[in-house]
Amino acid sequence: MARPRTITDERLLTATAAVIERVGPGFTLAQVAREAGVAVGSVAQRFGSKAGLLRALTEQGRTQAVERMRTAADAAESAESAVRAALLAVFGELGAAGDSGVANHLAQLGTDLADPDLRGLLGLHYAALRQELSGLLRAAAGDGWCGPAPDVAARVLLSAVNGAALHWSLRPGDNAGSNRAGSNDTGSKDPGSNHTAANTAAANTAAANTAGANAAAANTAVASDDTAAGKGTLRVCLAETIDVIMKGWLP
Amino acid sequence: MARPRTITDERLLTATAAVIERVGPGFTLAQVAREAGVAVGSVAQRFGSKAGLLRALTEQGRTQAVERMRTAADAAESAESAVRAALLAVFGELGAAGDSGVANHLAQLGTDLADPDLRGLLGLHYAALRQELSGLLRAAAGDGWCGPAPDVAARVLLSAVNGAALHWSLRPGDNAGSNRAGSNDTGSKDPGSNHTAANTAAANTAAANTAGANAAAANTAVASDDTAAGKGTLRVCLAETIDVIMKGWLP
Repeated sequence: MARPRTITDERLLTATAAVIERVGPGFTLAQVAREAGVAVGSVAQRFGSKAGLLRALTEQGRTQAVERMRTAADAAESAESAVRAALLAVFGELGAAGDSGVANHLAQLGTDLADPDLRGLLGLHYAALRQELSGLLRAAAGDGWCGPAPDVAARVLLSAVNGAALHWSLRPGDNAGSNRAGSNDTGSKDPGSNHTAANTAAANTAAANTAGANAAAANTAVASDDTAAGKGTLRVCLAETIDVIMKGWLP
Repeated sequence: MARPRTITDERLLTATAAVIERVGPGFTLAQVAREAGVAVGSVAQRFGSKAGLLRALTEQGRTQAVERMRTAADAAESAESAVRAALLAVFGELGAAGDSGVANHLAQLGTDLADPDLRGLLGLHYAALRQELSGLLRAAAGDGWCGPAPDVAARVLLSAVNGAALHWSLRPGDNAGSNRAGSNDTGSKDPGSNHTAANTAAANTAAANTAGANAAAANTAVASDDTAAGKGTLRVCLAETIDVIMKGWLP
């Protein structure tokens, strides 16, 4: 396959995201170069270092997340569903990632927290998403609104979906069998769900083997989760989270 | 200072938590040994490796968090306030950590996600907290309860407080000036809040300097946050998060 003459930043950052999803925070510039089909020197020259690459990825992530939120909100039929659609769009890029892919992205986010520059950029990321969501909530908070002020509502909803993504990556079966969300959700099934659920079951079993007497209660919970009929997707988990909070705020 | 003849696991794990709070996931066994006042060989012999130390810390964390939740719930005056108290108790250990300390703990959590064994243990941790909270919510969901089933409510509330802790560590000023929570909250003021708020302002400024044109809107948000009269503590942020969700579910 011939290399294109111009390697865009976007192409290198897309490759970076793919490698992070597969490998987690231990990824190397060489892996990114291989994924993008370029020489490792090209990646190093463009971004300087792994830290530089992560800064560029975080900035691009903010711009893209805001764009996805706006596109999703614009297509919604009501102010309420615009809030829901925009929140789901924040995680739109992770739709097919599977639980280990989501965990790898969150592991990278966690690692970024230890770097003051990246932490500052993540603060800007949150501020941008919150501002976007606040505007949508102002439109949704009409007569009879029982929820908090739009900027507080935005913070709480963003916190809830971020925490829900973490929870889902740890235990994707925990919202299996729930009918509360997803009933009006047309998101596609995660094609990797069987595979990734099996991985998690294996990890849970391995952990249970080392967890000692104190984990007896938790082990029982794992066993009952694993026998549940189905595993929910990330989208279903996030939609349920949004719906049960918003339901309490709407007239 | 004389060394005690018997070095308990608990002492080494307490030292580990203190070092993680200060240093983040890059900590070494030597730093833990220094913090505990023991030889590095003692730490290595007890836990085998940094990974072994982190597994022991995660298991201890689960047991202690469940104990804190039960103690807090037992002291509460009503079923509703037991839910609130138990959720706040999950983060009780971080009460004096400051935003950079909380970020370092969350950075360690993120790093743990990339390790299959630790990820399995974190799954057990969540399951244990969720089970505990579900029981408290069953008691709170009496006549007129408008919220979801107790196990779903437990998942959503846990997700929300976890996400809120992450959000707070990134932008501790974001819930400043809010009167919704804290009004009936007697938690003590974070003694490090001025210091840590200044650190975050510096980090945000550094990030803003490198963030480019796309961040213009976000930068404005940072500026207005920094001029807010006060900075909320983690406890106030978490209490607000719980209250605005629970309010929608209670009669």
